[in-house]
Amino acid sequence: MRFSHRVDISEPNPIALAERAMRARGATPIALNDSNPTHHGLAPHMLPEPYAADPRGQRYAREALAAYLGGVSAGDIYLLSSTSQAYAWLMKLLCDAGDAVLAPKPGYPLIESIARLECVEPRFYQLRFDGSWTIDTAQIEQLLRDDTGHRIRALIVINPNNPTGSYVKPGEREQLVALCRAYDVAIIADEVFFDYALEPFEGNRRFSGERGVLTFALDGFSKTLAAPHAKVGWIRVSGPGDDVREATWRLDVIADDFLPMSELVARAVPPMLATAPDQLQRVRARTQGNLRRLHELLRADALGVVDVLRAEGGWNVLLRFPSVIDENELVLSLMEHAGASGQPGYFFDMPSNGYLALSLLAEPERFASNVRLVLGAVARALDVSD
Amino acid sequence: MRFSHRVDISEPNPIALAERAMRARGATPIALNDSNPTHHGLAPHMLPEPYAADPRGQRYAREALAAYLGGVSAGDIYLLSSTSQAYAWLMKLLCDAGDAVLAPKPGYPLIESIARLECVEPRFYQLRFDGSWTIDTAQIEQLLRDDTGHRIRALIVINPNNPTGSYVKPGEREQLVALCRAYDVAIIADEVFFDYALEPFEGNRRFSGERGVLTFALDGFSKTLAAPHAKVGWIRVSGPGDDVREATWRLDVIADDFLPMSELVARAVPPMLATAPDQLQRVRARTQGNLRRLHELLRADALGVVDVLRAEGGWNVLLRFPSVIDENELVLSLMEHAGASGQPGYFFDMPSNGYLALSLLAEPERFASNVRLVLGAVARALDVSD
Repeated sequence: MRFSHRVDISEPNPIALAERAMRARGATPIALNDSNPTHHGLAPHMLPEPYAADPRGQRYAREALAAYLGGVSAGDIYLLSSTSQAYAWLMKLLCDAGDAVLAPKPGYPLIESIARLECVEPRFYQLRFDGSWTIDTAQIEQLLRDDTGHRIRALIVINPNNPTGSYVKPGEREQLVALCRAYDVAIIADEVFFDYALEPFEGNRRFSGERGVLTFALDGFSKTLAAPHAKVGWIRVSGPGDDVREATWRLDVIADDFLPMSELVARAVPPMLATAPDQLQRVRARTQGNLRRLHELLRADALGVVDVLRAEGGWNVLLRFPSVIDENELVLSLMEHAGASGQPGYFFDMPSNGYLALSLLAEPERFASNVRLVLGAVARALDVSD
Repeated sequence: MRFSHRVDISEPNPIALAERAMRARGATPIALNDSNPTHHGLAPHMLPEPYAADPRGQRYAREALAAYLGGVSAGDIYLLSSTSQAYAWLMKLLCDAGDAVLAPKPGYPLIESIARLECVEPRFYQLRFDGSWTIDTAQIEQLLRDDTGHRIRALIVINPNNPTGSYVKPGEREQLVALCRAYDVAIIADEVFFDYALEPFEGNRRFSGERGVLTFALDGFSKTLAAPHAKVGWIRVSGPGDDVREATWRLDVIADDFLPMSELVARAVPPMLATAPDQLQRVRARTQGNLRRLHELLRADALGVVDVLRAEGGWNVLLRFPSVIDENELVLSLMEHAGASGQPGYFFDMPSNGYLALSLLAEPERFASNVRLVLGAVARALDVSD
């Protein structure tokens, strides 16, 4: 695997080497330059313990997380503040300025924004809908084959994708891993919605722990705990041993420059994880209940021109309405008549007009009301209301 | 002021404009796509309140900080996890790939590492020592004048600098502001050590709040509260009104992509700030007491070949020893004989051999012992021990 030149991995100086040797003998050097006040009895009362910076995040928090995830080593985890930060670090790790990452369309615009901030070019592959969503793996292969300058350094998969709600299927996964291995490209798998299946399915698995190619799996409390304000995210690194060693060595340098996890947050990781099963259950009950209700409401709608794209997982669905109605006009009409706003398909680069994203999180009465607002707006737009 | 092309400031779409107009009328749109679980009664018990993301950080925390700082508007503050993150955001804001920032030497190597991660070239200006440290402003002017491609986008000042402990003097400040204004360059002022004066001085001021040129002043709890593990930092923006408006508009986009401040940390900001005066006093007593002790120990040393460079502020001083002793050899000898490690001058790009950084934070007995270890190692190196 090729890595960027952005990470300074120059040879350690003789002093660093001697410190390392001393630590290997089980001794701790006295640091004449130690300017960590918590080592000298000066920490404030609210955070009194001596603090030792760990680039991967507080060990006790990573161990709690590894135990929660199961079958994961704490050493393969980097704790940070968000999957946004994870994307940024991984682009620094993998891409020089002008290098590229492949990302899905339809998809979430945040990745494009972060890539731009990191001097990385986002290129896109299509998900195609024919009753359910599939990844155009032939297109990905073509993109990789045409990339003769070898600028594409990572393939981003969102599993399940947002807002399409589609999981990566076992056959697709096999092809993607083989392609990435063949073209020396890492996988960045954003799996924050993985636990939120909306339909029973078979054979879908997380990329997390994938050994066939260097893989960075992202997840966090934002979705697992329905706690976007906790600002807890993580990267799990896996893949061929040499690639993992090289990647973590370099990622440690990046992480060491930023050390994002506050002790105040790390302390909350173990007790918050204990509530994860209940939180997952609460949110699943909400999204699954609202999806059933949505189907009922659409079936009961006299006009019958709105349907919902099959969603396999996640917190959102895409409503499809007659494409004679302009997406912007529909939403502007919703705002004018009902004070309700929304994200039409073009926000996510849907290939055609006629889509609106709908969150499944709203409380049931609010949710039903939201659906009725959309149905009413569609009826008005078609000029068949009242 | 010119900004980078890394921040997506494309025209808002008609829906965003309509939402803005609605909010301007005091109304809040119903968001059909609202996938923030805390808005739907789904937040976990440890963080139950509805959470509204604010790119600059939680308003109540910024207000508490503004009140603590005095004479500062909460709207001019960005809360984030560290000054490292602040540097990274500001380089994204100001620099395209290959653009440059000016940074001081001697200085702290972290800035160089972050610049590299951000695809930004660090260029250096010298601080010169002749009994006290001065900034070579003529060299800065030359660097700016020679920069015909206008790649230099920011001047970094560390006030006081680390490890030299030197404040920017009023005359230097006036020149730097005038130069940056003339060459359309922003100032990034790292003032984390500002409150830790080691000597009485006159006329030194923070760059924070400077109005003559676009200025980003950095500070945080790491030093103010002796709490590096709290991971609370901030940027205060000031300068000519048009530049501040343009900068904050763009910085909001960056901040919105990352939103680094956990609610768990934000909640702790007001009570932690209440302990700041005591913490500052405790740490100042330690550093000032140790500096006095250092002078006593150096005066009492029979050999009399080690002195300390005049330090005006901060947590570290530079010891100077005879330059016939190689810096690496001195530290390796310290490790071998006493298990003590340190950072010699070349770590900070001191212009010549013969320096060792010494932290003033150690507990008094430990500190005195550290000084004696250095004096002993110097005596051994000169072969005059025993």
